[in-house]
Amino acid sequence: LHRIKASGLKLQLCTNETQATRENFVRKLRAMGFDVSVAEVTAPAPAACRLLKERGLRPHLLVHDDLIPEFAEIDKTNPNCVVLGDAAENFTYANLNKAFQLLIGMEKPVLISLGKGRYYKETDGLKLDVGAYMKALEYACDIQAEVVGKPAKRFFESALAELGVPPEQAIMIGDDIVSDVGGAQQCGLRALQVRTGKYRPSDENHPEVKPDAYVNNLAEAVDIILQQL
Amino acid sequence: LHRIKASGLKLQLCTNETQATRENFVRKLRAMGFDVSVAEVTAPAPAACRLLKERGLRPHLLVHDDLIPEFAEIDKTNPNCVVLGDAAENFTYANLNKAFQLLIGMEKPVLISLGKGRYYKETDGLKLDVGAYMKALEYACDIQAEVVGKPAKRFFESALAELGVPPEQAIMIGDDIVSDVGGAQQCGLRALQVRTGKYRPSDENHPEVKPDAYVNNLAEAVDIILQQL
Repeated sequence: LHRIKASGLKLQLCTNETQATRENFVRKLRAMGFDVSVAEVTAPAPAACRLLKERGLRPHLLVHDDLIPEFAEIDKTNPNCVVLGDAAENFTYANLNKAFQLLIGMEKPVLISLGKGRYYKETDGLKLDVGAYMKALEYACDIQAEVVGKPAKRFFESALAELGVPPEQAIMIGDDIVSDVGGAQQCGLRALQVRTGKYRPSDENHPEVKPDAYVNNLAEAVDIILQQL
Repeated sequence: LHRIKASGLKLQLCTNETQATRENFVRKLRAMGFDVSVAEVTAPAPAACRLLKERGLRPHLLVHDDLIPEFAEIDKTNPNCVVLGDAAENFTYANLNKAFQLLIGMEKPVLISLGKGRYYKETDGLKLDVGAYMKALEYACDIQAEVVGKPAKRFFESALAELGVPPEQAIMIGDDIVSDVGGAQQCGLRALQVRTGKYRPSDENHPEVKPDAYVNNLAEAVDIILQQL
């Protein structure tokens, strides 16, 4: 990050994190030694807030407690849509029924999902991610959710808007073949896949998505980008 | 029921009830004045038990507490499949993650679902049914569940086996256009839809399923059947 910034290049972190506000996310990164500001982070919750404001939607939130501050300025009275995040412990039987009852009672149910991940790993094992609960509500209501967050095109567009550059002048570096590489390419960016984190060797035979290049780690990606300036 | 039995016709109740054993289900019906025995009830849990035995499967159960006795004789040690019912209050975040972890850890995950209903009505409002949770696990594991219970063909076949008659000599009477009428017809039975319970006027324009006839209530169905003897 330091080398990217020192070279004068602009940088935006695109995360699907929905268990914490950007403030908390940045605090954690800074504690790990990364020099990042809140403005340099694109995340699903702020993208959802923009969409809610544009369309005059008032959400019922089924999200993680730590994410609620991101929606502080949004009118949540008399909800006309449901916003679903990785609510973790808030995914109770009662809370899911409540979200379902609101949706099924709407003339045209609107479900906005902050992601569509299947599962993720925690220290005590794998956990169902927001995508699984999204599918449950989609099926029960016979609707399609609108996904904010990667790989949504709108998500990468708002990251580009923050950077102030067109897609062809930007490069995405990420470990997720579908959410990162596929999403970025659909938005017109070039995309590097790092062979760390979520990367699996089988990704290199993915039936639909092929990155513009592979790198073994982030440092190598930075080397290549800086060489080409 | 009394008139059907008095005429010498055989009768089998086919229910997707998975919140109680057949014993309890029959007890409730008898309390309401219906002369029914356990042998006259076809339900998803016993169908699942047959399937488990046939295939040597040892289930992890995510079902309603009141249903557990139906699986008393089944080996549940070291599970190699998950059986999902309408677990209601047992649909906790922890229990769903547990079922998911077991499935994703299997070489070939086997998910057996006791139904695929979207939702049902209780006195305190609509509730998500087993089908919604089935979809969540299907998506997370990238698998297809095997559905026992209506509208599965196997389910109607076991009801016919109990009756000892071929499908062309049986008539199904039910209120659900897809689970009852569609399922029975796919198994070769004729099917009457009653215009009570789950029936909606829009069912009469269903794109895929058309009952052999409509009746306004159960008594009318019995009249018609007895007239044709």
